[in-house]
Amino acid sequence: MRIVVDAFGGDNAPLEIIKGSALAEKEYGAEIILCGDEAIINNCIKENNIVFNNLTIVNATDVISMHDEPTSLLKAHKDSSMAVAFRELAEGRADAFVSAGSTGAVVVGGTFIVKRIKGIKRPALAAMLPSPTSHYMMMDIGANAECRPEMLEQFAIMASKYLEKVEGIENPTVGLLNIGTEETKGTELQKEAYKLLENCGVNFVGNIESRELPTGACNAVITDGYTGNIALKLIEGTATTLFSMLKPVFLKNIITKLCYIILKDGLRGLKNKMNASEVGGAPLLGTKKPVFKAHGNSDAFAFKNAIHKAMLFAQNEVISSIEDCFSEKDN
Amino acid sequence: MRIVVDAFGGDNAPLEIIKGSALAEKEYGAEIILCGDEAIINNCIKENNIVFNNLTIVNATDVISMHDEPTSLLKAHKDSSMAVAFRELAEGRADAFVSAGSTGAVVVGGTFIVKRIKGIKRPALAAMLPSPTSHYMMMDIGANAECRPEMLEQFAIMASKYLEKVEGIENPTVGLLNIGTEETKGTELQKEAYKLLENCGVNFVGNIESRELPTGACNAVITDGYTGNIALKLIEGTATTLFSMLKPVFLKNIITKLCYIILKDGLRGLKNKMNASEVGGAPLLGTKKPVFKAHGNSDAFAFKNAIHKAMLFAQNEVISSIEDCFSEKDN
Repeated sequence: MRIVVDAFGGDNAPLEIIKGSALAEKEYGAEIILCGDEAIINNCIKENNIVFNNLTIVNATDVISMHDEPTSLLKAHKDSSMAVAFRELAEGRADAFVSAGSTGAVVVGGTFIVKRIKGIKRPALAAMLPSPTSHYMMMDIGANAECRPEMLEQFAIMASKYLEKVEGIENPTVGLLNIGTEETKGTELQKEAYKLLENCGVNFVGNIESRELPTGACNAVITDGYTGNIALKLIEGTATTLFSMLKPVFLKNIITKLCYIILKDGLRGLKNKMNASEVGGAPLLGTKKPVFKAHGNSDAFAFKNAIHKAMLFAQNEVISSIEDCFSEKDN
Repeated sequence: MRIVVDAFGGDNAPLEIIKGSALAEKEYGAEIILCGDEAIINNCIKENNIVFNNLTIVNATDVISMHDEPTSLLKAHKDSSMAVAFRELAEGRADAFVSAGSTGAVVVGGTFIVKRIKGIKRPALAAMLPSPTSHYMMMDIGANAECRPEMLEQFAIMASKYLEKVEGIENPTVGLLNIGTEETKGTELQKEAYKLLENCGVNFVGNIESRELPTGACNAVITDGYTGNIALKLIEGTATTLFSMLKPVFLKNIITKLCYIILKDGLRGLKNKMNASEVGGAPLLGTKKPVFKAHGNSDAFAFKNAIHKAMLFAQNEVISSIEDCFSEKDN
């Protein structure tokens, strides 16, 4: 299993990315291909005593940043570490791709370098979010701000396949994010999508109101990328704000301060769980080969997990099962 | 100041609605007109020893429920307590309207019985939400699932006027809910609305990401009703879920349980603050007379506050200042 890694994507690149890659090699036997400035990578490995048994480095001195236009990946930044990594995947020298870099650029690279599965209108990002007891998928979380009903139908099919194959959830429940449970609720997009979701072969459980979203009321929540992105960041923002509002409760007096010291670890665990927002990043579904977006602020541990998810994505025939669905549909 | 009250709207009607109305009479000198089944109202007043000095009851034996089509207010339920209350307002026998009943029906009654201000495309609901230090307005929270850019522009102008006149905020900051801070972000709706908001005379501070929303980053957050409703309920749902996730932290051992007992009151206060979701309900802005939607689960105290807000709404010339804006615009 050859995993190509954009060594210069993300807030903690390249050190944490390289460290995480080495951990994934050790723990899961991933064969790592690092894309990025060879001199810097080698230096970083040496200085930090990082051990690889079998590492390939593909040199790329340019980097695409969060501030660059995502489409610049195809022109101005076509020699960036991310673009080079995408070509390793597209040209068959790797089995899966992982980057913690610009989300927009990952979507562009997936769509135009790796290319779409035949019949798929637009690839989309499917994040795993924490619920009290487990986690749930939300798709799309921002690849496509504007969506048509048929796109939401395709998201539902792809999300179901991924959850079955990678997360091992049999017949996953699929809900449509909406402002009421009745099928007449929402905008034209939701009303039309509701009808399509009822008849596309997924385990559709109807509309899910956002109030139920954080409880993990269904395995996959389908939405357009604008709403999904709003929801994703709002869950994170609400959790952060609530924790900040807990402070005065603990600062009230000496006894409540003592309570804080006692509860600190538990609270921190909960905060981390909510703040990570996405459990280990998000697969881009709908491309011909496995593209995985790690969280932008991934540390080595989070990046190792992202590589692991990308390996499961590649191993479990998610893409061939999606291809099967859509080749049947086309014929 | 004559306030007409839909005595049979909301989860706790009629008892808490009637109690709250009596409190508002006593505390703010509101002259209350209760609409609903006269016999039940009189009975309720007697049985609970509720004191009014100057009460008018307008009989209406029908009730519109949360499950009825909102537009049925105009036909099948045209003699419901809410419809009758709307006519009291529209025909000049009251200065402001308050209901804790069906949100959809309130929007329908405001739009078609009270009618729109000349030049206003669609009235919309503007809720006040709690922030750590104060509160902020979000508009629209669900009156119009589908919006056009010019509607968002009008929401921004109306929200600004309301915050100035009722909340006493000078030159309130207005943000556009979006998935990034750059003006090129979002769907066509946000991109077009951004341009309009820049030039409509409000104190526009640009796009607000949902992550910043709960912090109260600006005084008024403008959005379409679909997204606003999703956001409103997601903040509430995330807070509820987080509090449920706090439980295991406190149940860990005997000492953490003791901490819970010590912190209980502070935590409950915080929970209530977040769960109320809307601070005292939401004005419907854009109608010719003041229409105020109280929270569906209002108790007497919350309903009293809603009446107070409705009085401020009527007293402070919000509507005439909105009318001035749009008559200037039209000419």
